[in-house]
Amino acid sequence: MPILVMKFGGTSVADPDRIRRAAKRVGVEVAKGYKVIVIVSAMAGRTNELVGWVEEISPMFDAREYDAVVSSGENVTAGLLALTLQEMGVPARSWQGWQVPVRTSGVHSAARIEDIPTDNLMAKFDEGMQVAVIAGFQGVSAEGRITTLGRGGSDTTAVAFAACFEAERCDIYTDVDGIYTTDPRITSKARKLERIAFEEMLELASLGAKVLQTRSVELAMRNKVRLRVLSSFDEPGDSAGTLVCDEEEIMESNVVAGVACSRDEAKVTLLSVADRPGVAAAIFNALSEAGVNVDMIVQNISADGRTDLTFSCPIAQVERAEKAMLSLRDGGAVNFSELALDRDVAKVSVVGIGMRSQSGVAAKMFRVLADEGINIRVITTSEIKISVLIERKYMELAVQALHDAFELDKAA
Amino acid sequence: MPILVMKFGGTSVADPDRIRRAAKRVGVEVAKGYKVIVIVSAMAGRTNELVGWVEEISPMFDAREYDAVVSSGENVTAGLLALTLQEMGVPARSWQGWQVPVRTSGVHSAARIEDIPTDNLMAKFDEGMQVAVIAGFQGVSAEGRITTLGRGGSDTTAVAFAACFEAERCDIYTDVDGIYTTDPRITSKARKLERIAFEEMLELASLGAKVLQTRSVELAMRNKVRLRVLSSFDEPGDSAGTLVCDEEEIMESNVVAGVACSRDEAKVTLLSVADRPGVAAAIFNALSEAGVNVDMIVQNISADGRTDLTFSCPIAQVERAEKAMLSLRDGGAVNFSELALDRDVAKVSVVGIGMRSQSGVAAKMFRVLADEGINIRVITTSEIKISVLIERKYMELAVQALHDAFELDKAA
Repeated sequence: MPILVMKFGGTSVADPDRIRRAAKRVGVEVAKGYKVIVIVSAMAGRTNELVGWVEEISPMFDAREYDAVVSSGENVTAGLLALTLQEMGVPARSWQGWQVPVRTSGVHSAARIEDIPTDNLMAKFDEGMQVAVIAGFQGVSAEGRITTLGRGGSDTTAVAFAACFEAERCDIYTDVDGIYTTDPRITSKARKLERIAFEEMLELASLGAKVLQTRSVELAMRNKVRLRVLSSFDEPGDSAGTLVCDEEEIMESNVVAGVACSRDEAKVTLLSVADRPGVAAAIFNALSEAGVNVDMIVQNISADGRTDLTFSCPIAQVERAEKAMLSLRDGGAVNFSELALDRDVAKVSVVGIGMRSQSGVAAKMFRVLADEGINIRVITTSEIKISVLIERKYMELAVQALHDAFELDKAA
Repeated sequence: MPILVMKFGGTSVADPDRIRRAAKRVGVEVAKGYKVIVIVSAMAGRTNELVGWVEEISPMFDAREYDAVVSSGENVTAGLLALTLQEMGVPARSWQGWQVPVRTSGVHSAARIEDIPTDNLMAKFDEGMQVAVIAGFQGVSAEGRITTLGRGGSDTTAVAFAACFEAERCDIYTDVDGIYTTDPRITSKARKLERIAFEEMLELASLGAKVLQTRSVELAMRNKVRLRVLSSFDEPGDSAGTLVCDEEEIMESNVVAGVACSRDEAKVTLLSVADRPGVAAAIFNALSEAGVNVDMIVQNISADGRTDLTFSCPIAQVERAEKAMLSLRDGGAVNFSELALDRDVAKVSVVGIGMRSQSGVAAKMFRVLADEGINIRVITTSEIKISVLIERKYMELAVQALHDAFELDKAA
């Protein structure tokens, strides 16, 4: 009995008509002989409405009550989809998190799935049920209280079910039809990838985060769950979307899989910082407490026991970062001569597992940017990614030039 | 540890502001030393929205999925009220039906409460919780599926909790401030009753049904739960509302407690029906299958083995009733000479437990109507109620005259 997991996001179940469209897609897979586990999000806009009420009532809310309230949106969709399937003649029923049960940690609003016993659902499949519709994003703690997994948690629910039920695949239906080599709004040459490796997907977060929650990709990678991203707005069979899979499943690929970019970055440099143990820890601890999401960190070699330290963060958080750094200096914990802010930068990255075996990618990237007259302000690298900060106005130009140079419009 | 049950209907929790008002009332009772169990309905309009989606998707819906969907409205209110109480510094938490658990029969959408174990809540009260906020209208079946109690079921939930926890009282907060001797829109002399007996409340359904679900009054009567109806829109302490209680708690009362009326009635008479066993059963079975809610039934003595049979029903159902009767005759099951419809009637009733011991109430009622020149078309009586059908245009006049004649504007 092959099992397929299908997940529909909020825009794919936004009203009864869209729920019917989703149900038809489920019907297509049932007709192929799959037992299907469907994970649903709340109807688009519902969760925001619920969160709005909670925040209006209680700015410092009890996360347990928050979870009890916001999880209700998914319950509605699950019931409505089960009814739609029944109406089509497909034996289906809905399951809320506590009914499965989806056992989670007790960290409310950010719970981790610990276990999904398969016996309840399997017993129903054995009795003839063909589709189990699961309210995503939620579970139940050991204390019997409702938990939620945090925003985008329905993707994680889907991957966890796929792992526990050893599903053949986990199809994530969303409002885009796959993962592209870069943002199609920046270059029309952007090409949809047929396959992408988990690690590339994680590094392409700025492309992929809107599509797949990072945490769900990590979980899929760890459990080797084959993920497919596809659009619920295409007709069934129109497009196979993009398969996110283990790199062993990708026979041949371009050295670079994609070019990612992020417009709203800021660069903060602390000049002449004392270079001694504990300083970096003090700095980044203060930034974390101030709620600053630090992205790139660069520290060069020191001279005379002092060094320059640069980090990047979202531009909206740069005031917070500045305040945190100045109060750190005022408190005497860290000393530096000057704080330099640069609000005028964007980040461009090239990502590809091929880089591991192919050298020269960095050299080629820097050459392409130099040829366009683009100055590189900061460079960081990981095993399969090279990122640079450049002046913001050059971002699109850089993406287009790199996309051309690495021939991403052509399949491998 | 005295326990108080408080129930807030949909209009009393329609938005965060009203939820705050409700929370303040709960706070007043907590300050008096009560442990409080609060039962909440869904925010006004929410349940209708959910039911609308279900009916749009699946006209012949699976009641189990219907229950899973429509119960979600109460979960939202329960969480929001618990948060509001916490914000006020009152230790509170929300409970969904399955968490308590509220054990019900498996008859979805019309489940009956079978048992409410008190240990979970009592343990939390012992730990310092002062308020348990319960999602009304819902429970869980032996199969672990969510059930609902049917419309207005939150009143029943409230009474059931009051019975199981031996609460001192069950306060039902609604949008009216109590039970009146008659509809205040018909006569300004209508007086709010301080107390009313359960049985009177049941017979005054046409006054009371908008206020209290009949089933909850029956349950309260059986378990001797003292019910208080009061308005959530008054300031706390403004009004004590109306206490619905055992007749032993009512020391002295008027012979008649109230005058009820119902405008949209129709009268159907079958002339010259064969008077033999099984005929009445055949007729009312056919009406029931046609979805006709029969109210009054009158059959007089027969002559020559034939009799006339009259019943009343809501005017909106009279075509259905006619069709059912004619097809019954066409099928040969029941024979009658003629079917007479009267769409121009209203029902007026006087109700009071005092009637049991006081004679002459019927004579007085008929005299008052005769003095106003109102002809009585049908009469039925129960132990504590006398109902008549009269021409519709006289309804208000009849109510005003009876209210005056029985001096209902004056307390006993």
